[in-house]
Amino acid sequence: MVHKLILVRHGQSEWNSKNLFTGWVDVKLSEQGKKEAKRAGELLKESGLKPDILFTSLLTRAIQTADIALEEADMLYLPVVRSWRLNERHYGALQGKDKAETLEKYGPVQFKTWRRSYDVPPPPIENTSKFSQFGDARYSTVDPAVLPATESLELVIKRMLPFYQDVIAKELLAGKTVLVAAHGNSLRGLVKYLKHISDDDIANLNIPTGIPLVIELDDDLKLIKEPYYLDPEAAVAGAAAVAAQGQKK
Amino acid sequence: MVHKLILVRHGQSEWNSKNLFTGWVDVKLSEQGKKEAKRAGELLKESGLKPDILFTSLLTRAIQTADIALEEADMLYLPVVRSWRLNERHYGALQGKDKAETLEKYGPVQFKTWRRSYDVPPPPIENTSKFSQFGDARYSTVDPAVLPATESLELVIKRMLPFYQDVIAKELLAGKTVLVAAHGNSLRGLVKYLKHISDDDIANLNIPTGIPLVIELDDDLKLIKEPYYLDPEAAVAGAAAVAAQGQKK
Repeated sequence: MVHKLILVRHGQSEWNSKNLFTGWVDVKLSEQGKKEAKRAGELLKESGLKPDILFTSLLTRAIQTADIALEEADMLYLPVVRSWRLNERHYGALQGKDKAETLEKYGPVQFKTWRRSYDVPPPPIENTSKFSQFGDARYSTVDPAVLPATESLELVIKRMLPFYQDVIAKELLAGKTVLVAAHGNSLRGLVKYLKHISDDDIANLNIPTGIPLVIELDDDLKLIKEPYYLDPEAAVAGAAAVAAQGQKK
Repeated sequence: MVHKLILVRHGQSEWNSKNLFTGWVDVKLSEQGKKEAKRAGELLKESGLKPDILFTSLLTRAIQTADIALEEADMLYLPVVRSWRLNERHYGALQGKDKAETLEKYGPVQFKTWRRSYDVPPPPIENTSKFSQFGDARYSTVDPAVLPATESLELVIKRMLPFYQDVIAKELLAGKTVLVAAHGNSLRGLVKYLKHISDDDIANLNIPTGIPLVIELDDDLKLIKEPYYLDPEAAVAGAAAVAAQGQKK
């Protein structure tokens, strides 16, 4: 049978316009981000796809995105599982920092390395930083030893994959259509894994916000065909916008 | 230890102003209902109570209430479990009917019996009715034989209690603070059970909307003290309003 996995990246957050590194800092969606989530719900409804279960990260902006989209699609009743393993990449000591100031302070080479290299994480954040998740009740049921203080994309993939392989894959193999609402880097990591994208090429993969990406898998959970967006034209424009943002900052 | 169970009844739905019997018909919150949910979240936040897990029915108005309240309280990340067993009472063939017309057609005695008797359900709804849940994907994972076509309060309690006793109680006994977002009748049933209210007296229990009710239980899950609302004054007014609504219609 065809197993369907639908990925949605959350839209604009309240920190986008502020030009701050976010990572695990729990900011909410902006009004623009809420509109993007609503659009995702419309696309889902129009597609006729019927998710059986929802997975989200523990971050508010991804949860809001799922809630708004599913309300729009009349599917708020879906069972939900949340996990820190779907969280955005932890941006370490850069969290809460201004992007332009960081660029000026460290220079373009270091800046680009932190943003786009596969395996170089920024310096770790201190537990005492107000932008650290240290002490956040949200993570109180997770082994503190496994919670990161900074991450590269490689580290994101390492902590995300066990959740995909054990929990999400289980639902797919049971015949469920799965919806995942998460973040740029956790979703890039998942697509890298499923499409066997190389460590070098992944830097060029940009996932647009608010446009569901449908991945069809066979019984071995291998790709049947190229994943497709529910609004392909908007997806091209959206990916270009994400790429341009990466250039700019 | 003290085990804490927090109940929230959803606020006004889009059908309240239309004066229609709702039951399992999946109507959304009105703007007023959303404000009530936000107030519930404010009260939760001010109280300092920290729920560890959320339970909701499968009906959109209860899920919206939880989502809005938890967003307000910065607790959207809570793990969630949804169950049809927390749904509102099924109103049978009365679902979608105008209350005033129903009163006129059947007379005040029959009308009051359907609304307030403990064990007399309205006539069952036909599967062909557009107000039946028949064919709704929401219930596709439940044994069809157990899904009701009408319910008395007694029947609500019979199907709700196994979920409380097995699933919610398990979390309470594990030391979790539990939040339940549900409906007038599923919550009345739960309070009846926990407070040992008689079948006759339960008609007089009115749970106000949007005001969290805190129930403290001992290690045998027996009441430690009288349950209390997080805004006691508003709760008195709200319960009176619910009672008056019952009289009026």
